[in-house]
Amino acid sequence: MDRNIPCSKIKIDRNSRVPYYLQISNQIKEMILQEVILPGKRLPSTRKLAPILGLNRSTIVLAYSELLAEGLVAGRIGQGTIALGSEQRETDDFQMPVSRRWNDYLATFTNYVYDTLILEGNEWRSQEDAISLAGGDASPELYPIRDVQEIVKDLMENRPREVLRTSSCQGIYPLRRAIADEMTREGKSTKPEEVIIVSGSLQGLSLLSRILLDPGDSVVVESPTFLGALQVFRAAQAKIIGVPLDKNGIRLDILENILSRQKPKIIYVLPTYQNPSGIVLSLERRIHLLNLVYRYNVAIIEEDPYGKIFFEKEPPPSLKSMDKSNIVIHLGTCSKTLFPGLRIGWIIASSQVIKRLAKARQFDDMHASTLSQEIITEFYQRNLMDRHLAALRKAYKNKRDIMIGALEKHCSAFMSWNRPEGGFYIWCRLKAGLRSSEILADLPQRKVSILPGGAFFPRIEDGESWLRLNFTYENEDQLQKGIEILGKVLMKEYGEKRARLNERKARYMGQSRPRI
Amino acid sequence: MDRNIPCSKIKIDRNSRVPYYLQISNQIKEMILQEVILPGKRLPSTRKLAPILGLNRSTIVLAYSELLAEGLVAGRIGQGTIALGSEQRETDDFQMPVSRRWNDYLATFTNYVYDTLILEGNEWRSQEDAISLAGGDASPELYPIRDVQEIVKDLMENRPREVLRTSSCQGIYPLRRAIADEMTREGKSTKPEEVIIVSGSLQGLSLLSRILLDPGDSVVVESPTFLGALQVFRAAQAKIIGVPLDKNGIRLDILENILSRQKPKIIYVLPTYQNPSGIVLSLERRIHLLNLVYRYNVAIIEEDPYGKIFFEKEPPPSLKSMDKSNIVIHLGTCSKTLFPGLRIGWIIASSQVIKRLAKARQFDDMHASTLSQEIITEFYQRNLMDRHLAALRKAYKNKRDIMIGALEKHCSAFMSWNRPEGGFYIWCRLKAGLRSSEILADLPQRKVSILPGGAFFPRIEDGESWLRLNFTYENEDQLQKGIEILGKVLMKEYGEKRARLNERKARYMGQSRPRI
Repeated sequence: MDRNIPCSKIKIDRNSRVPYYLQISNQIKEMILQEVILPGKRLPSTRKLAPILGLNRSTIVLAYSELLAEGLVAGRIGQGTIALGSEQRETDDFQMPVSRRWNDYLATFTNYVYDTLILEGNEWRSQEDAISLAGGDASPELYPIRDVQEIVKDLMENRPREVLRTSSCQGIYPLRRAIADEMTREGKSTKPEEVIIVSGSLQGLSLLSRILLDPGDSVVVESPTFLGALQVFRAAQAKIIGVPLDKNGIRLDILENILSRQKPKIIYVLPTYQNPSGIVLSLERRIHLLNLVYRYNVAIIEEDPYGKIFFEKEPPPSLKSMDKSNIVIHLGTCSKTLFPGLRIGWIIASSQVIKRLAKARQFDDMHASTLSQEIITEFYQRNLMDRHLAALRKAYKNKRDIMIGALEKHCSAFMSWNRPEGGFYIWCRLKAGLRSSEILADLPQRKVSILPGGAFFPRIEDGESWLRLNFTYENEDQLQKGIEILGKVLMKEYGEKRARLNERKARYMGQSRPRI
Repeated sequence: MDRNIPCSKIKIDRNSRVPYYLQISNQIKEMILQEVILPGKRLPSTRKLAPILGLNRSTIVLAYSELLAEGLVAGRIGQGTIALGSEQRETDDFQMPVSRRWNDYLATFTNYVYDTLILEGNEWRSQEDAISLAGGDASPELYPIRDVQEIVKDLMENRPREVLRTSSCQGIYPLRRAIADEMTREGKSTKPEEVIIVSGSLQGLSLLSRILLDPGDSVVVESPTFLGALQVFRAAQAKIIGVPLDKNGIRLDILENILSRQKPKIIYVLPTYQNPSGIVLSLERRIHLLNLVYRYNVAIIEEDPYGKIFFEKEPPPSLKSMDKSNIVIHLGTCSKTLFPGLRIGWIIASSQVIKRLAKARQFDDMHASTLSQEIITEFYQRNLMDRHLAALRKAYKNKRDIMIGALEKHCSAFMSWNRPEGGFYIWCRLKAGLRSSEILADLPQRKVSILPGGAFFPRIEDGESWLRLNFTYENEDQLQKGIEILGKVLMKEYGEKRARLNERKARYMGQSRPRI
């Protein structure tokens, strides 16, 4: 560690509402601006600073990305981070006095939106030689290309003006009709008025959070849960209450205990092939959960991106399909089954909720791309979905098995995992005290990305012994190569951990000897 | 008026923060739920209730739409509004006890998002025989169809997987490059890192409001200004300060007076062919405005959708192109020049702002449709824009002249208007005490839509003698027919107004006679 950097001056206030990473970046920022840290000086590595501050390495990584984003430091994480002088900083803003720095203009909101995993994941996938086990993307190789080419050709020849013009804020009627009909077939009679088309189900969740949540409202989630949902609820400044899962899904005894004592505004669940755990909420618990929300009168959001991607038997019916009281808000998407780049998802809910969403949506993106909506509509109207879904199930089941084979070969000494019956992910538990934020810090140089468990827990710390692997996006060779590299990194981390332990033991022995 | 409806019980609290329309709808709601208003009873017409409460008719229309949205009343505005009994209400939610009504779940946010003009406008345009002078849409007849057909064909043949997959949250690089290059040509050297592609510039404004505004922050706008911007700032619970315009744009003496006394977070302006007024901010004032924001250190958002749609000489350079200090946030869009249905806009700003926006965007729609972005990119890369823009300018100039001709023929007795040198709108001032909310209430039955002036003012009341007409969307025949109908409605309203005046005069004379 560079002795000139006064790390010891960094103070963490554990009672503050300001996230740790921001406390750190703000203090280092001040030191750089006041040249307590001189231009050109190297900041301590994240690995070294973390134990000094008694924090996870991932927190330090976040703090450094913040400084990078502000143009106060240069360099890449893992390769050294160097403080910049006032001349080198932000060449685009060089004429701005410090007082006109954009940070001084930012709203509270930005303190709550700190994760950059989706951002980085999307950039990562655009690199040629990178292996992405981090994202949640469908495989482009499995896109139904011939079908979509024909559909787009027909649309552009026969109705070009219609597919390029402004359309309803609630979504085009034929697509709402198709989505409503599908839910009706699943058992819940649904009208197009009870459907809104959104630009991806995450936008749906973001709109829902705006119409339902005030700062300080409570939201119950499964712990672990979808990282995007956690970020949406954090951005809404909600109080997030995590309820653990067992092999049959969310623990309803714990949930009921919470409901009997407080009044959360929303319960958010992923009942089928849960992200990240792959767990399926049992039919019995689905019925019990519905009865709980009726009894305690709390709205429930059911996210269901993976329900159609099953590898063995069909999963139990969705909560919405069994909902007698229109209290379930159902989020669906075509990003996992068709084309994520078109950004099409939907919400099925009481028409009262749908109308509020359409109203809020007017002053946002107004509506999802009309062309995107028309393309997806054609997949339903031409009855192309069933055959395509059957092909996806077969292909993804095969990929799951390939990843599990590779894990058994390369990683079984360092972690255990589930064997999901559907969905996109394998959820792995690290053994021998390995921590996922440490694994993560070593993987990028080796061109493999994974997601650390912490991203999925309301309290990041709870996820340190977990990591999530996606098996749908990469091809078979890349899947095997990726897991092989992961195995090597696990091996190396394990070796280093043991060495550090031995060193500490030796030091302890050395110190204690004179006292004997 | 039905004597059974106890309108006199409705009390308006003029000091409350709850909007008037919500105060009204909440009180009527209670009367319906408690059957003080019996099922089947007709509510008083908006025209009759407005003077009783001493409010504008548009406020009552809003209140009734609220009741309609909640399923408490049936019928269409203008044709009678009827209270529903508990059996008829919300068939989709009929098993829900009153306590589980969705209204009880809604966040404060929903109180601030009440306008439905965009929502209704988009639905309106989908009606076959309706004439839309309300919206701000490009004419589908002027879409460059041959070009876009060829582009889409090439994309779907050569790179189908690439255009359908997930892409960067900040937008695809070639499009950011094209936008940056264009701004560079205009005089401000810009890098792709200083550009984010958004799903329409209104989403851009919504994202900006999230990262920049806390509830209670002040925002300065032109008065009148774009209604979507007003709604975004209202939703952010900002304090909106309107600064009037003169023929050279925003009044800088008044702005400086405000800046010297308070510290607004943002100034939002439309310097070129301002919406709705059509005014162009003079070059001299542009320079003065930039100096003001540098001096007072306040961020400025420049919305520039119409700058390329000029009919006479080119407008002065954009604020961004003259910005030496990267304090201008520039919003652009292709919705006015190419295809609004693709939902593509962009923000050019300091890379610090862009990074924050990309971060926030991860947990919303993630990115604009990749296919949409690729299509627009091709228009730039194939150099198709210049020829297309030249054609648009010619066609829209012609449409402007047709509308002005029709106005002179049918409306000159009842209003005056400007002759815009670019953009999409004619801004009309009503004469003889005519009010735009009254005009608006009569037009829908006649299948013509316009926008009432109130929608464009921070205080709705200030716009009652204004209305906005769009001349780009409809074809020449429809433009002429629409203005002819508007003329008839103006004539009828004027006649009724005079009759009421005479009646009141007669009553006054009648009353006063005995006293003599």
